[in-house]
Amino acid sequence: MSSQRATAFVPGHVTALFSAHPDDDPAVAGSRGAGVTLTDGVTVRVSAATDGESLTGDAGTTDAATGAGAGETTIDGEPGSIGAVDDALAELGVAADVAVETDLPIGAGFGVSGAAALGTALAANDAFDRGRSENELVRIAHAAEVGRGTGLGDVVAQARGGVPIRLEPGAPGVGELDGVPAAARVEYVTFGELSTERVLGGDTETLSAAGEDALDRLRVDPRLPTLMDVARTFAREADLLVPEVAEAVSAVESAGGEAAMAMLGRTVFALDTGLSDAGYDPEVCRVDAAGARLVDD
Amino acid sequence: MSSQRATAFVPGHVTALFSAHPDDDPAVAGSRGAGVTLTDGVTVRVSAATDGESLTGDAGTTDAATGAGAGETTIDGEPGSIGAVDDALAELGVAADVAVETDLPIGAGFGVSGAAALGTALAANDAFDRGRSENELVRIAHAAEVGRGTGLGDVVAQARGGVPIRLEPGAPGVGELDGVPAAARVEYVTFGELSTERVLGGDTETLSAAGEDALDRLRVDPRLPTLMDVARTFAREADLLVPEVAEAVSAVESAGGEAAMAMLGRTVFALDTGLSDAGYDPEVCRVDAAGARLVDD
Repeated sequence: MSSQRATAFVPGHVTALFSAHPDDDPAVAGSRGAGVTLTDGVTVRVSAATDGESLTGDAGTTDAATGAGAGETTIDGEPGSIGAVDDALAELGVAADVAVETDLPIGAGFGVSGAAALGTALAANDAFDRGRSENELVRIAHAAEVGRGTGLGDVVAQARGGVPIRLEPGAPGVGELDGVPAAARVEYVTFGELSTERVLGGDTETLSAAGEDALDRLRVDPRLPTLMDVARTFAREADLLVPEVAEAVSAVESAGGEAAMAMLGRTVFALDTGLSDAGYDPEVCRVDAAGARLVDD
Repeated sequence: MSSQRATAFVPGHVTALFSAHPDDDPAVAGSRGAGVTLTDGVTVRVSAATDGESLTGDAGTTDAATGAGAGETTIDGEPGSIGAVDDALAELGVAADVAVETDLPIGAGFGVSGAAALGTALAANDAFDRGRSENELVRIAHAAEVGRGTGLGDVVAQARGGVPIRLEPGAPGVGELDGVPAAARVEYVTFGELSTERVLGGDTETLSAAGEDALDRLRVDPRLPTLMDVARTFAREADLLVPEVAEAVSAVESAGGEAAMAMLGRTVFALDTGLSDAGYDPEVCRVDAAGARLVDD
């Protein structure tokens, strides 16, 4: 079973609405809210580190402080570094090379860092036969992502797939999930980056109040059009809308479609052919039914 | 959104080990245990009943007592009746025609009745725009299946996909799930039917004690080979093994593979090429990563 290499796929996740729930324990911290997981996602290949195969202090470069989780990380073929990936490896006690590949834009609200962390946990557990359960691996990735301040709710949503509703914040065993039952085509356009760390690091009180209201409305009527409607209200009330996104959302609505802003990115996503109908040239994918999973190499 | 027709796919589920936890409340009743969901499954098409489109007392034939959930049900094209399907429709207050299609053998331990109920709930909710959440639909199907005595844990496992571990019995909000992270080829051979109702209706004390032991061992080491190992021990200790299955399990083990009995059916399932290597001519599928989902018609 210990093949020393494995591959995982993790769907992208656009958050439609959320409230922030910080906690000293990163497994307890998280967000409530809802979003959409996408068949466009992140593929993570984990293999034994070329410069060290076990948990020793001399291997690799990515986390010299602990010597754990060492090895080379590449992002779309280029050397790179993702803090949550390093932390997930360290938690599993493996030194590994990690190749992260994605067609999704990075830093644009698709949960790429969370997907990379979760894919790393799944693939490293398989490659190095660590014998952790799915919940344990999701917990490791969630804690790594929260600890690095790069996300609060993407990991648990990406693990579930579909259109996840985060009823209660936190990792499996702490948080609670539900979902909007839906199969749909999704389109998206990205206008650039927005810093998750900066928004989550600031005052989140107004944002979270708007997120709680939006979630309450969605729970009463867990349907896709309602999700998009409450997401638009949330973006306005939380004062997160950026001009290009606001314009695109309006254009889609004018064309009779449903669109909303992806939190936190300069990204608009729409159902069906919403953005195409409004004259944009969007990327096209679907709701991902499966959630994070091991795949054949 | 109310197209009056929709289709869902629900994976088959072979239970490897379980303990029974009856309760007067069917959402609380269920089983603890573990099993494998399969890419071979059940497709359910729901459409407006040809003899009545709303919840009235005069429509259809399948549940004359309540007049709800009426309409025609077919199983692989032949008129048929599945109690849990009728109850799921009634709970959603719709009269619908339901076409259940599956390549899986019925009554042989693949959870076809649970899959039919869950697929009906998902598709009927979509076709008739009932606005229920995923958890609510799983709860409806679980309660219908438990109420009919045709299964205790298939529905929640089929909703999750993968290799589900049922940590605590019951529907979403009551029960708790984890999973063995695994992507694998699965082979199976069926030798005939075994009555779930008869086994679950009898004395389940010995069976449940063996199931609890097996689950404890799996939770310490949530890996696929361990699942197969504890499943074999469970089948012996619970006195559920039938001769043809015992022979096939031994043959696969002798050929160096991993096999176990599907609860409750005269069915053996194996990892990878286990049954082929032992000289059997099995059906071949894979672990289903996604779980129950709406699909395009």
